[in-house]
Amino acid sequence: MRKATIYVTLKPQVLDPQGKVIMNALHTLGYNNVTEVRASKMFEVTINAENDADIAKEIDEICDKVLANPNIETYYYDIHDE
Amino acid sequence: MRKATIYVTLKPQVLDPQGKVIMNALHTLGYNNVTEVRASKMFEVTINAENDADIAKEIDEICDKVLANPNIETYYYDIHDE
Repeated sequence: MRKATIYVTLKPQVLDPQGKVIMNALHTLGYNNVTEVRASKMFEVTINAENDADIAKEIDEICDKVLANPNIETYYYDIHDE
Repeated sequence: MRKATIYVTLKPQVLDPQGKVIMNALHTLGYNNVTEVRASKMFEVTINAENDADIAKEIDEICDKVLANPNIETYYYDIHDE
């Protein structure tokens, strides 16, 4: 069993309304030195396989098909022991 | 300017319906060696401050008040240059 931690982030040029709402909330609470908030997703995927090259190929497929929208998002990941 | 990358994850004993739905979707697509998926959130916060101890104190407050639900979630973060 291996785990992949996958990070899916909006591309830098894509507007992030969720991050903007959080930043406005922080300003309302007085945290005026916060100048930007970007919200992203993280997934921990446990895979019953041992070969890291095979796992990387599978994670790439999973990200392209399910976890990330390649039009507006990028992803990166690391593979590690449980 | 410094950036904090904040990771907000469900506590291990808390059920993750979003992760479960993703896992079921992956099984439907034939990725049957995926045994668990846990979905989490990640935030990149840019702060106009330089003292890392002050920034850590502010990030702790922000997480407790806004970004994380301490009943069911935990968070960790690292502070780094832009």
